[in-house]
Amino acid sequence: MTKNTKVNAAILIIGNEILSGRTQDTNTSTLATWLNSIGVKVGEVRIIPDIEKTIIEKINILRAAYDYIFTTGGIGPTHDDITAESVSKAFGLKYKIHKEAFKILETYYKPGEFNEGRQKMVWMPENANLILNPTSGAPGFNVENVFCLPGVPSILKSMLGGLTNRIVGGKPILSLTISLRTVESEIANSLTKVQNDNKDVEIGSYPFFQAGKLGVSIVIRSEDQFKIDNCNSQILEFVNEKKIEVVDR
Amino acid sequence: MTKNTKVNAAILIIGNEILSGRTQDTNTSTLATWLNSIGVKVGEVRIIPDIEKTIIEKINILRAAYDYIFTTGGIGPTHDDITAESVSKAFGLKYKIHKEAFKILETYYKPGEFNEGRQKMVWMPENANLILNPTSGAPGFNVENVFCLPGVPSILKSMLGGLTNRIVGGKPILSLTISLRTVESEIANSLTKVQNDNKDVEIGSYPFFQAGKLGVSIVIRSEDQFKIDNCNSQILEFVNEKKIEVVDR
Repeated sequence: MTKNTKVNAAILIIGNEILSGRTQDTNTSTLATWLNSIGVKVGEVRIIPDIEKTIIEKINILRAAYDYIFTTGGIGPTHDDITAESVSKAFGLKYKIHKEAFKILETYYKPGEFNEGRQKMVWMPENANLILNPTSGAPGFNVENVFCLPGVPSILKSMLGGLTNRIVGGKPILSLTISLRTVESEIANSLTKVQNDNKDVEIGSYPFFQAGKLGVSIVIRSEDQFKIDNCNSQILEFVNEKKIEVVDR
Repeated sequence: MTKNTKVNAAILIIGNEILSGRTQDTNTSTLATWLNSIGVKVGEVRIIPDIEKTIIEKINILRAAYDYIFTTGGIGPTHDDITAESVSKAFGLKYKIHKEAFKILETYYKPGEFNEGRQKMVWMPENANLILNPTSGAPGFNVENVFCLPGVPSILKSMLGGLTNRIVGGKPILSLTISLRTVESEIANSLTKVQNDNKDVEIGSYPFFQAGKLGVSIVIRSEDQFKIDNCNSQILEFVNEKKIEVVDR
């Protein structure tokens, strides 16, 4: 895979607690920001319940459609942690004790503390590759292009550093934000013209409220800095003409 | 539809800014909490980019599979706001000026301020039903079971109250949370037994950190208060046996 290839990923958030509204997902934003920084574009996110059939089905759909899949949640010790068994079934692999993971947790816990509950966390798809967990011991794993991470945000975050060299990204996606003291409707037509002149650049427009004032952030995204700079000039041209203030944000 | 029927919904978050990690989605949690309160269970959430073909395809998949679909984002005045046109195409309806919406915005804005950019916001699928917006004027809309709301969280929130009587929910989904000063592995086996004895109740286990201490929240969810109480008793039984502290959270 050369650095010119576009590389994409899907994120699969597994957990009833997100679908019920009880827990606010923050892992999507963490993963997406990290993936962008290593040249992987997130094409889709799905949030699904802790139902084995659903997990298997979605993993098989997504792993065929995207270069990488990242799952979060469901790899702990309780009855509702069914990601590892579901991934085993999705790949038609045995679900069994992973010897290396067993050794890691045997060493991690004090003598006598590596109980039956904790031992559930070393059951994985056969020959899975471990993803080390510097926070709380229990590793994640990947099978082919499916990477399984925990749901607890601080633990997930701590595991990404060790994973970076296992993901082959494309060119990093660059972005530039221009924040303006205006409202979207004032710039909509001019911005449409810039987008039409630069069809392969992603231009987004996002209203914001800051210190009681309305504003709009325009975000320009591309793998090509030259194209970003070109859009930026075109935008600043109409911003100056319209005498719109550029603000820090 | 009687109050005994189970009613479900899917949420479709439309926006490149969520997929890039730039913006943290909070609308899922807002919508899911509100839907639960009126007896609608969220079965699935998808986050997708601002691409017309993708929006049309996903709307058509989801509206066939769920009782209700809620979309967020893409109904503003700029070039990247393509939800209304995409919904029109998904339903094979004309995309045209909605007279009632036009009147609302004509009255909302000061004379001369209802410019071409703002007028884009009254283009909708033919005969769409409006969803009033008490915050910033521009209405959302629904076509059949697809309800289209804005992406700005505060505006979205303000529109739900007016929508409640248009959604026919099932029995409200009740829940009870028991928070314990323990770790998941200590209770995993006992909790599995309770789940196996109560297969139609949803029991989730969620570790937390609070004031530097580890804990676990057990969440029991069902439409039937009796079943929740029954699970609660069974859980408190092993909690007492194991001398685990119950904590407020």
